[in-house]
Amino acid sequence: MIKNRDIEFMRRAISLAKRAEGKTAPNPMVGALLVDKKQRIISEGYHRKAGSKHAEVIAIEKAGIRSKGATLYVSLEPCSSYGKTPPCVDKIIDAKIGRVVIATLDPNPKNHNKGVRILRREGIAVKVGVLKEEAEYLNRVFSKHIKNSIPYVSLKAALSLDGRIADSKGTSKWISSPDAREFVHKKIRSEVDAIMVGIGTILKDDPSLTLRDSKGKLIKDQPLRVVLDSDLKIPLESKILKSKKGAVLIFTSIKTKKKKKRAELKRRGVKIIDIAVYSCRGLDLKRVLKALYREGVFHLLVEGGSSVLSSFLERGLADYAYFFISNMVLGGDYLMYNGREFRLNRCPKMIRKDCRCFDNSIMVSGDIVNV
Amino acid sequence: MIKNRDIEFMRRAISLAKRAEGKTAPNPMVGALLVDKKQRIISEGYHRKAGSKHAEVIAIEKAGIRSKGATLYVSLEPCSSYGKTPPCVDKIIDAKIGRVVIATLDPNPKNHNKGVRILRREGIAVKVGVLKEEAEYLNRVFSKHIKNSIPYVSLKAALSLDGRIADSKGTSKWISSPDAREFVHKKIRSEVDAIMVGIGTILKDDPSLTLRDSKGKLIKDQPLRVVLDSDLKIPLESKILKSKKGAVLIFTSIKTKKKKKRAELKRRGVKIIDIAVYSCRGLDLKRVLKALYREGVFHLLVEGGSSVLSSFLERGLADYAYFFISNMVLGGDYLMYNGREFRLNRCPKMIRKDCRCFDNSIMVSGDIVNV
Repeated sequence: MIKNRDIEFMRRAISLAKRAEGKTAPNPMVGALLVDKKQRIISEGYHRKAGSKHAEVIAIEKAGIRSKGATLYVSLEPCSSYGKTPPCVDKIIDAKIGRVVIATLDPNPKNHNKGVRILRREGIAVKVGVLKEEAEYLNRVFSKHIKNSIPYVSLKAALSLDGRIADSKGTSKWISSPDAREFVHKKIRSEVDAIMVGIGTILKDDPSLTLRDSKGKLIKDQPLRVVLDSDLKIPLESKILKSKKGAVLIFTSIKTKKKKKRAELKRRGVKIIDIAVYSCRGLDLKRVLKALYREGVFHLLVEGGSSVLSSFLERGLADYAYFFISNMVLGGDYLMYNGREFRLNRCPKMIRKDCRCFDNSIMVSGDIVNV
Repeated sequence: MIKNRDIEFMRRAISLAKRAEGKTAPNPMVGALLVDKKQRIISEGYHRKAGSKHAEVIAIEKAGIRSKGATLYVSLEPCSSYGKTPPCVDKIIDAKIGRVVIATLDPNPKNHNKGVRILRREGIAVKVGVLKEEAEYLNRVFSKHIKNSIPYVSLKAALSLDGRIADSKGTSKWISSPDAREFVHKKIRSEVDAIMVGIGTILKDDPSLTLRDSKGKLIKDQPLRVVLDSDLKIPLESKILKSKKGAVLIFTSIKTKKKKKRAELKRRGVKIIDIAVYSCRGLDLKRVLKALYREGVFHLLVEGGSSVLSSFLERGLADYAYFFISNMVLGGDYLMYNGREFRLNRCPKMIRKDCRCFDNSIMVSGDIVNV
């Protein structure tokens, strides 16, 4: 009976955490609630953004003296060290919380299980692992950053029914229905720190890669715009260089000289990072990801084109993908995936998380696993 | 006010008609109801299968003397000639029906508007065109047969996320989740008269193309199994030739001799039809469709492989398509569509009618239009 209530309250904590989806980096999302002995919710809180109060603290402060003896449900292990705010474990001990239920431990090896140990040492009953998988999945971007030291990578591609991303002339402006475009801006681009395209996409489509609100106005916090351009072919008149909102980062080959162009790009505020080439398939994406991690990128959205998407899939570097499958049959050579062949029993697979119908397309999205 | 009730009652008539979906060939689906002056439904009926009573007749007989002065709603123009049953217009006149509301006229040029004229000549008020589009769409298979003298063509294909229908070794058994397989058998194959594959599919997958119930048992009425085999390469030990349920029809090139094999196939009850070759792309599909029409096929399901599906799409001969998009990325040369390239503004497009999620795939289906 009590067990079931634990799950129920933790589900609430996770749903509180989700309110700040895509807004807490470099911190994780956390939700918390206090429940009294009669199983009534006393107070709730969630972490809104880096620098603001932690979820547990909000809940405890709201509850005041009613915190004493109450049970705290929190979706992530409370912090035990000084960051921008004092450690939450101190707050929990001071408030005389009776019991703490935690969904998952801090993925950071430095803090892993530390908060739990401190609380137990103080004689507080601690239960760990209620809705563990959900809580871990919630903070997968944060965890990957900490554990793997590379950004979490999402792919986004618009395909025809037959797997092409452009027609015979390279035209690809087909996600034209306002509902799909709005979804891309509001739900996909707005939750990432950086958007990446290959130089082919810049030359063919000349996108500005900026984020607009529903009225078409540029929003304040723009993601970093990243271009893979091994030969530094980017035209100086590209839209991406003209649009002043949002920084631009170009990855090029260490072998590429073009001193004058490098200087001109730098003069315009563009950052250039030299990367080793990975066989014939272009820049070494693992090194690119490591460099992006050092730039503070938690969540990278790769928008194309074909060879960039193919390289991420082929090398097993994609964590998630959004595929917008349009209503057309196109034929031709502009395939979304043109990398090496896989066998059915060992290929990149999507574990579907969402499926949506738009006017002229359906979107299917999910985790990408290589099994 | 009365107008709105007309729509409401006609919607009911169409939904009655749909109860016999896929079961009325060579007849259309028809639903009918009788409504009294107080707008109450007196009786309902629908056409169950060829040879059984027409929808109007069932409704009138159920109503008995209450038919007098009532309004008849019928989704298709009542027949005016002797077929397997006497003309419905006579029954309507005899029953002294007061008013007749019809969704759409008979698509057969011989009967088009004839029933309406007879009823009006008898002084019965007739209104035509209520929910016309819905009623026409309902009987699109029947109408195409009558108007174009070729079967209605549906395609079915299982694709990877990147538009492949098999992996590098040609393996394609991936719609393996029982829910998707059951849908194919119960909802797609069971509503067609014939299933077609190319010889490549026979050689690679060796399917039996039979229809099974949910317990895996072969059902009684099997669709005609059609193979496009221009060189008569079909192995005599193919499953399709071994399974006794369901007739087999092979289309081959008029140029193919292979007298001995022809004789052996005929001895086993296989029908062989010689067809002219259409350029380098194999047999002339228009002639194939005309021959299938003469064989009494109303609804053809084309199941693959790549070159057959491509030819139907390329030549604009597909009316409908079911695409099962799996969760895999495969790469390689086994593309679902490898025909000529189209431009975005002029290509085969799907007008989506349905989208369903299965365990490992999503299905999107709809009308195929070439615009």
